Amino acid sequence: MGKSYLDLVNECDRFPYYEDNPALYLEHLKNYHIFKVTGCDAALGYILNSTVERFFSLSECWAVDSANRTVTLVTPADATFEQRSELVAKSLGKAVELGTFDILKGWRNEMYPVYGPGGKLLLEMERSATPLFGVVSYGVHSTCYVEDENGLRIWVPRRSRTKQTYPGMLDNSVAGGMSTTEHPFECLVREAMEEASLPEDVVRANATAAGCVTYTYVRSSKAGGETDLVQPEVEYVFDIKVGADIIPKPCDTEVEEFKLYTVEETKAAMANGEFKTNCAVVLIDFFIRHGILTPENEPDYLEIIARVHRRFEFPTASHVTE
Amino acid sequence: MGKSYLDLVNECDRFPYYEDNPALYLEHLKNYHIFKVTGCDAALGYILNSTVERFFSLSECWAVDSANRTVTLVTPADATFEQRSELVAKSLGKAVELGTFDILKGWRNEMYPVYGPGGKLLLEMERSATPLFGVVSYGVHSTCYVEDENGLRIWVPRRSRTKQTYPGMLDNSVAGGMSTTEHPFECLVREAMEEASLPEDVVRANATAAGCVTYTYVRSSKAGGETDLVQPEVEYVFDIKVGADIIPKPCDTEVEEFKLYTVEETKAAMANGEFKTNCAVVLIDFFIRHGILTPENEPDYLEIIARVHRRFEFPTASHVTE
Repeated sequence: MGKSYLDLVNECDRFPYYEDNPALYLEHLKNYHIFKVTGCDAALGYILNSTVERFFSLSECWAVDSANRTVTLVTPADATFEQRSELVAKSLGKAVELGTFDILKGWRNEMYPVYGPGGKLLLEMERSATPLFGVVSYGVHSTCYVEDENGLRIWVPRRSRTKQTYPGMLDNSVAGGMSTTEHPFECLVREAMEEASLPEDVVRANATAAGCVTYTYVRSSKAGGETDLVQPEVEYVFDIKVGADIIPKPCDTEVEEFKLYTVEETKAAMANGEFKTNCAVVLIDFFIRHGILTPENEPDYLEIIARVHRRFEFPTASHVTE
Repeated sequence: MGKSYLDLVNECDRFPYYEDNPALYLEHLKNYHIFKVTGCDAALGYILNSTVERFFSLSECWAVDSANRTVTLVTPADATFEQRSELVAKSLGKAVELGTFDILKGWRNEMYPVYGPGGKLLLEMERSATPLFGVVSYGVHSTCYVEDENGLRIWVPRRSRTKQTYPGMLDNSVAGGMSTTEHPFECLVREAMEEASLPEDVVRANATAAGCVTYTYVRSSKAGGETDLVQPEVEYVFDIKVGADIIPKPCDTEVEEFKLYTVEETKAAMANGEFKTNCAVVLIDFFIRHGILTPENEPDYLEIIARVHRRFEFPTASHVTE
C-alpha cells in the first residue's frame, strides 16, 4: 500500500494548525521563540528553543525574552537593511567558527530575504541559516511537460547521489531557491538553464505562472542537520509545456538524469516515496490544476488544496520592490 | 480608483483569522455559538448569537449551552441522517410559519448536506437556511473561455434583474449550488445546460476540474436577508475551453445575456465592482492559474492565493460516498 496524496502533503506541511486543536497548538508553540527585529512588531519566524539556548547567548545583538518567548535582533531604531544583515552575518560567522550548528555545514553562500509587513525588506541572511530562524523562504518549482497524442508526460530529474540533501531522490523538472534580489520568473529562467539546460528563449516562450504552493515544513533527518527546525516555504509554481523535441539535460552536477514519465509512472513514484518531499506537493498541485486529481477521484481533495496553500503567520512578499 | 484584487478577496473572505490577531479573533468568536449534533464532537458551523436567541428557544430539539456557546441538535445516540434532517426541517418549518427570519423568504426547495469528520453525512437542510447555521456549503463555478488568435476571452453572463440575490450583476459562465446527492462534475453538467444552454457532450468533452476556491463569506445586505451570518463556501472550479462556434445562451430566467469579454474588459468590470462577490474570486483564481496575474504584476499575489484557499475549522467532504 503506497502513500496517499494526503500522506505526502502531511510529510511536507507539518506544523500544527490552530483550528484543529487550539490547546495542543498553543502547547506546541511553547517549543519556540518568536524571531523579531527592533522597530517591527511582526513575528518573522519561529526559533526552536534549543537553538535559542545554543546560539543567542553568544552575541550581544540578541535580546531573549523568556516570558514572552521572543528573540529580538537589537539594533538602533533607524537601522538599515545592511546593518541588520551585517549583525546576523557576524553571529552566523561566529557559530560557524565554533561549529555550533550542523545545518551551517551546508553553507551555500546564497543570501535569502526576510520581509516585514508591507513588503519591507528587513534583512538578508545566508540560505542555510534560515531554518534556524524559522523565517519564510522562497523558491520556484516548475513542471516541464509534453502533451500530445501520447498523453501528458512529465520531465522528471533524479537528484545527484552526491547532493547534500535528498540525494538520489526524484525532483521537479526545474527548481531552485530565490535569493534576495531575484524575481520569480528570472529565477526560473536561470535555474532552467543551470539545472536542465533549457535555453532562455524556450523558457520565456513556454513557461506560465500558475500560482504557488505554501506549506510549513518541519525538518526531518532526511533534510540534513538539526531536526525539528521550522521552515515555512513559498514555492512559485510554473508550468513549462514543450514539444517532444525539447529535451532537458543535466548541466551542473546537481542532477543525474532526466526521464519522461507518464502520469501513471509519476503517480507510482510518488506513492512509493521516491520524490523529494516538497516536489511531491508541487506535482499534486499540478495534478489538481490539470484535472488529473478531481473531487470525484481524490477523497482528500479539499483538505489537500487548503493545506498546500497555507496562510502563514509571518509577513511575506513576492520580491523586492524598493 | 477601482478595486484591487485583494479588495475583491476581502469582500468575499470576511471572517477574521486567528494568526492575524489572536485576541481579536477570540473576541470575535463571542458573537457566535457553535453548531453541533449529538454524538459528534466536531464544530459544524457558527450560529450568530441573535439567531440563537430568536430561533432555538422555539423547539425542544435544540440544547443551548451559553457558557460554552454551543447549540446542539439533540437526538438519540443512534439517530440516522433522516431523523436529524427531519428535526431540522420541522424547526425551519415553524420559523417560516412565524416569519422569524427574512432569509427563509428565499426558500429554495433544495437540500444541502452537512458533513461530520471522515466525510460522514450527518444531515441535510434547506439551502436558504444554511447561513443561519453557518455550515459549509458547496457549489461549482466554471469559466467558459475561448483562446485563439484573438487572445483569451471569457463568456460572462449578466444575472437577471429580477433575481433575488445580486440582481443585474455579472456572474461566472456557469455556477450553481450542489445539493445533497450531487457530485461536482454532474452538477456542472446540469447547471451548464440549465443556465447556459451548453449541451452535455460539449461540457463532458471540454470541462477540466481545476481545484476549488474556499472562503468564509459574511453576509452583507447585498446578499439579502439577515446580515452578518457566516457562510463558509467551497466552490469547485472548472475550466471549459471552447471554440468560437460554441455560444452560451440563457435558458432559464436566471441569466439575462451572455457576452464574450476580453481579459481587459473582465478586469475592468471586476475593478468596477460589477461581478457578484464570489464570482470575482473565481476569476482571480482563473487569472492566477492561467498566468494572467503573476508574482511580478500582482503585489498581493501570496496573500490572495492563501485567502482563496481557506482551510475551514469545520469538516468538509466533496460528495456523498456512502
